[in-house]
Order: sequence, then structure tokens, then C-alpha cells
Amino acid sequence: MLSREVKERLREYETPFYLYDMELLRRTVECALREADRYGYRLHYAMKANNDRRIMEFIASCGMGADCVSGNEVRRAIETGFAPKDIVYAGVGKKDSEIIYALRQGIFAFNCESKNELVVIDALARELGVVADVALRINPDIDPHTHSYITTGLSENKFGISPREITDVVGMLGDLRNIDIMGLHFHIGSQITDLGVFAELCRKVNASYRWFTEEGFRITDVNVGGGLGVDYDVPEMHPVPDFAAYFAVFAQGLDLPASVGVHFELGRSLVAQCGELISTVLFTKVSGLGDDIALIDASMTELLRPALYHSRHAIENLTGTGPERAYTIGGTVCESSDIFARDLSLPELRRGDLLSIKTAGAYGAAMASRYNLHDLPQAVFSDEL
Amino acid sequence: MLSREVKERLREYETPFYLYDMELLRRTVECALREADRYGYRLHYAMKANNDRRIMEFIASCGMGADCVSGNEVRRAIETGFAPKDIVYAGVGKKDSEIIYALRQGIFAFNCESKNELVVIDALARELGVVADVALRINPDIDPHTHSYITTGLSENKFGISPREITDVVGMLGDLRNIDIMGLHFHIGSQITDLGVFAELCRKVNASYRWFTEEGFRITDVNVGGGLGVDYDVPEMHPVPDFAAYFAVFAQGLDLPASVGVHFELGRSLVAQCGELISTVLFTKVSGLGDDIALIDASMTELLRPALYHSRHAIENLTGTGPERAYTIGGTVCESSDIFARDLSLPELRRGDLLSIKTAGAYGAAMASRYNLHDLPQAVFSDEL
Ligand SMILES: Cc1ncc(COP(=O)(O)O)c(C=O)c1O
Ligand SMILES: Cc1ncc(COP(=O)(O)O)c(C=O)c1O
Repeated sequence: MLSREVKERLREYETPFYLYDMELLRRTVECALREADRYGYRLHYAMKANNDRRIMEFIASCGMGADCVSGNEVRRAIETGFAPKDIVYAGVGKKDSEIIYALRQGIFAFNCESKNELVVIDALARELGVVADVALRINPDIDPHTHSYITTGLSENKFGISPREITDVVGMLGDLRNIDIMGLHFHIGSQITDLGVFAELCRKVNASYRWFTEEGFRITDVNVGGGLGVDYDVPEMHPVPDFAAYFAVFAQGLDLPASVGVHFELGRSLVAQCGELISTVLFTKVSGLGDDIALIDASMTELLRPALYHSRHAIENLTGTGPERAYTIGGTVCESSDIFARDLSLPELRRGDLLSIKTAGAYGAAMASRYNLHDLPQAVFSDEL
Repeated sequence: MLSREVKERLREYETPFYLYDMELLRRTVECALREADRYGYRLHYAMKANNDRRIMEFIASCGMGADCVSGNEVRRAIETGFAPKDIVYAGVGKKDSEIIYALRQGIFAFNCESKNELVVIDALARELGVVADVALRINPDIDPHTHSYITTGLSENKFGISPREITDVVGMLGDLRNIDIMGLHFHIGSQITDLGVFAELCRKVNASYRWFTEEGFRITDVNVGGGLGVDYDVPEMHPVPDFAAYFAVFAQGLDLPASVGVHFELGRSLVAQCGELISTVLFTKVSGLGDDIALIDASMTELLRPALYHSRHAIENLTGTGPERAYTIGGTVCESSDIFARDLSLPELRRGDLLSIKTAGAYGAAMASRYNLHDLPQAVFSDEL
């Protein structure tokens, strides 16, 4: 909860903007690192969730690695203080120029998603006279019980190397002299709240590890991806995700030699709760059906998740104190999908009230667009208020 | 169809990029203007569809007005050659700073969407010592038979002034001395292919016009919005939409005095077909279900429509000539929604093939984001190749 004093200071900034609680970010990152440390697990920040430079610099300074999905992400990770040897680079569609750039930086590993990609990385590494460290992304065919758009480990998805391709891959590895298959990589989806899904993942990881070692591979590192969900409904209840329970599932479920490095790629769980989108109520009106509508100056251009995934974020009226009413909260864009909430009870909204759209630190600013020529949202940090 | 020579020249540009056929744009805009001219209709380009400067400069040079939905759009319209007196400014959430800017430019009309907004525009106009010309956006409660996200004229939508609010509005207009209600505005949705929907709109427009004049308003202008659909399935069949049939529906259906100016706000129908997204095949692979997948270097960050609306664009293999196979075409982003096509038959795809994703001129580049830190796509124009 923001103090009244802080709320008044928010008025000095032009809305909409992202407000980041740097103290909560610190607590979250420290908790994740501490809990991971119990088991010697290595954490990489999945920077696709939020690539703000200050946030990245802070996370780098805590000693995490980075999980990148483009050449530009690798570049920004290095610029913001992540050591190349702590960077993993995933993605189904890596361009040659991106692969060459990452090879030159000497990153920790490429997470490879197809036979074709292995061949290309091998050829580019040969040209550069280097050997690329590669983790094979395995598609384990697990249903993570999350939104279909962010389900990435099912057989029909475009991600990873399917069991069908694996034997081909194994057959040709002898020819690929400039790649070293040192790891296995898994990522089954995002916003996963059922920890049983991760227990199932562990069983698949164990089986894959056994299969690859039996085939003669020397797997030194296993990366189990990210995906831990956060509480979008009542964020105050769970400002910091339950990392203890999450890592315990892996500690219990993974059956790997102690020498194997276990890596995670956490995005949402590290940065979602520390960010909120602050917006101003512009107008209130009544729809043709008699519903109260509040139109705010934020929209799908600043926060796409509600339009793209039908996701719902908790919303607080930071400045109003009247009796509660039920509102539809609409953004400024001329699309009916640009709605932040329906039938949401809030202290009566008036023009000029400040709203906070919670749990917006992950996949918020990172997905912003300039549709309708909106300016990109600014970032305001709690310790600079 | 691009000639082989042109295709070779496309290789000189880094993919993905938008390619705009300026000759097709010219034919389209000229056809729309010619057909509208038969009835004295006035056309405004809904620049939210594509705000590329060259495209806007060209459309302005043909003599169209502009339909804007933000202060930045009004600014760019003026910068690219649209006269302020030909600019309409719509949008459910106009900020004070945007309203003030537009008032200072002396635009043709504000399309107003709520009682609250009228009060605010009146107050701001009074401060500036001007009178704002205002068209009331009426929500006519029509189902346009299109995707629910782009349905904007139903009672439950956030758009326009509902019949419930209208009587209130009428009651208070006497107090609003700095606005002149000179118009009525309607826009019921986008990608409307059933012209019968527009015939229904005409009946609602006629009824609204009668009601307002009976109430003593002097309505000089009626704006019926945009929404004419284009052929996404077989774009070659309909490179230029059937503007003749479209305007004929209004000529037949509208029953307004000859002195009333009739305005349209066309976006998609003017620019969709002239644009295509050119992308390179990076990798091919086989999914766990045995499907062929081609991964290309474009993604939802350049073209969001498939992920956001499940929309499908026709795709052509510009460089391959082999036998056809069925493909899933996936983009580079780590989301399962980042798929351009499923089960699409194309001449066999090989790494390096150039693909054209058609009918991408509208709501393509305009909605691009830098998610995954992708660079924004460049624009290449046919007459500069
Ligand atoms: C390969 C990979 N790793 C990690 C992540 C991060 O996931 P999350 O933000 O759910 O932790 C993603 C998200 O899409 C991903 O695709
Ligand atoms: C008010 C308004 N006018 C015009 C348009 C343009 O519609 P289209 O591109 O379908 O012609 C839109 C699109 O959303 C709109 O909201």
C-alpha cells in the first residue's frame, strides 16, 4: 500500500507510467537467490519479462545470470552488467547475425530448438574458430494448465526438439565438431500455479538426462526454464512468490548427479509484483446497458496482457474514498478488447482519480507499442520518488 | 505478383520488413476518392491503420482528410500535410493536453464520446477563448458481424454516447457555450464484409439525424466512420476493395438533406492490401505430432493481428518452387500464439526462402512492439526498390 504522501508525489508525473517498487524487487530477488542457494541452483533472469535498464542492472548486481531470446537482449544484458559466461540464449528463431554476435561474446550456452539450428550454429562457430556450448531444448509434452498462448511444452507447440527429431540429431552429432552438447533445456510455459506440473517436469527431466547419458553424452548442465506463477488476484497476499516451495519441488523431484548444474530461467516471478501501471481517470459514463464505465488514460498500448490473454489485473483507486460501485475500466484505444476490468467494485471513480493496475512488472512495459502513436510509458522508481 | 527481378532486390534488405506497393496504394486511394466524389462524400484517412510518414504524405497529397485518435496523431497528420480543417479527432479517452493541442490547431471536429468529455472540452475551449466544433458519437447498437475485439457499436461497448446519456446531454447543452454540436458520428466496427450492416447503419443514422434536428440542433455534418473489410483470404482477387458498392449502400440508404456533409473514416480498406511483411525462413523442423514447422524471422512483434485476433493472412513463398507441403509457420517469439499459419500448403520451404505475409498494410507496422527487444520493422517502398 502506498502512503498518502507517496500518492501525492505520483501526481507530479504524467500518466500513464510504470511505477517500480525497488524495495520489493530487492526482497524478491534476494528471496529467490537464497532459496535457490540451498540446493546450489543457478538462476538466470528471463529478461523478456522486463528489459528496463535499472531493473536489469539491479538484478545483475545481485549475481543472477540472464536468459535472453534475441541478439539485442544479449547485448542489453551485457550492457547492464551480466557477465557473458552467465548468459543463456534461447529462442526458436535465431538469426545468423544474432548467433554470430552471441558466439563472439562467449556466452554460457545456446538453448537450441531444432536440428537445423544445430547445423547452422556449428557452421557459424566453425567460421569463427570457436566451439559453441549448446543445451538441447527438449519438448517434454507436458500440459502446464495455463493459458494456451503461454503453453510451450506440448507436442504440438513450435518449441524444442521433439522425440521424433532427437534420434536424427544424435545420429549427426559426430559431424558437428564445433558444438558441444553440454546441456538439456526445458521450459513448459508461464504463469504456472500448480506445482504438481513442475513435479511432472522433474520426471521428464530425469528420464531425458538418463537417455542422453546412456547415449554417451556428457551433460554437465540441466536448465528447467521458468514459469512460476504469481498472484494476480490478491497481490498483497503474495508480494513475493513462494520460491521455497517451488525449489523444494525440484530438490525432491530431480534425480541427477550432484555434479550436474541445475539452472532456472525466472521472469514473471521476479518482476511482476514490483511493477504497477499508474493511470488517471479521464471520464466516467454509462453504457447502453446501464453499466458504469470509467475511461482511463492507459490502454492496451502500455499493457497488452488483458487484450492478448484476457488476463485480469487487480486495480486500486489510489485517491478515491467514496462508497464502492461496480465499473468497467476501459482504455483509450478504439478496440473493444481494450478493457482492463469488468464489473469491478471500487470506491467511486471521479475524473482525476489515480488508479494502480497491479502486478504489471512482467510482460507489461516489455510488450508496449506505439499503436495510436501513444508515447511509450515512462518508468518511475520508488527510490527516486 | 512480384517479378523475379524485384524478388532478388528484396534480398538486399534485412528481413523482416514491410514492403509497400505505392502503385497499388495510389490506385486504391484514387478509386475511393472517385467513387466518393459521385455523391460528394468527404473521406478521412483513419491513420491508426498505418502512420508511416510516406504513406500519410501520399494520402494527404491526394486530398483526403485525416481521422486521428490521439494528440500525437493530430500532430503527425499536420506534419505530413493534412490541413487542420480536414482533421477529425475521435477517441474515448482524450487527455487535456491533447484536447488543448487540437483546439489550438483549429481542427474540423472533435468526435465526442461522453457527457463528461463535452464538459471538459467546453471548459478548455473557454480558457482558450475558442468554440470547439463537436460531433456526438452515437452508439447505434448494431452488430457488425466481425471479430468481437473490433466491434465498437454495440450497447455494451465503451464507445459513443448511449441513448441513456443523450437526453442528459441535450439538457445541459445550453450551458456549454464553447462547444458547437454540428455533427453526428458513428463507427460500428472494422473488417465488415457484409454490406447489409452498413444499410442498417444508414437507418440508424437517419433516425438519429431526425431526432437531433427535431430537438433543435443544426447538424451540418454526419460522419459514418469506417469499417469496410478487405479480402485476407485471396488478396490477389480484390487488391482494391469495392468502394463503388460500399458508397452506393450509403447513397441509397442515407436520407439526409443535400446540405449535410457526409464523412467517412477509412483505414483498413485504404492501406491493408498495399502492404506485405517480408520475412526469411530460418529453420524448418518437425513437431512432436509430426507436423512440418517453418520458423521465420518475423513474429508477433512486427504483426500482432494473428496473436491478438486469431486473424489469418495469406502467405506466399516468394523464392521456392518445389512441390507443395503443409506447414505451420511460426514466429521467433517464445509464445505459442506467435503462429502465422497452420496447415498451410506452400511450395517446399527451405532455409533462406523469402515469404510474403499479405494484406499487412493496415494494423501491421502501427501495432509493432519491441517485445524481446526486437528492432521495429523497417518500411521499404516499391518505387524505391
Ligand atoms: C524459454 C523461456 N524461458 C523462460 C521464460 C520465462 O518464463 P516466466 O516469466 O514464466 O518465468 C520464458 C517465457 O516465455 C521462456 O520462453
Ligand atoms: C472511430 C474510428 N473510425 C475509423 C476507424 C477505421 O476503421 P477501418 O480501419 O475499419 O476503416 C476506426 C477503427 O478502429 C475507428 O475506431
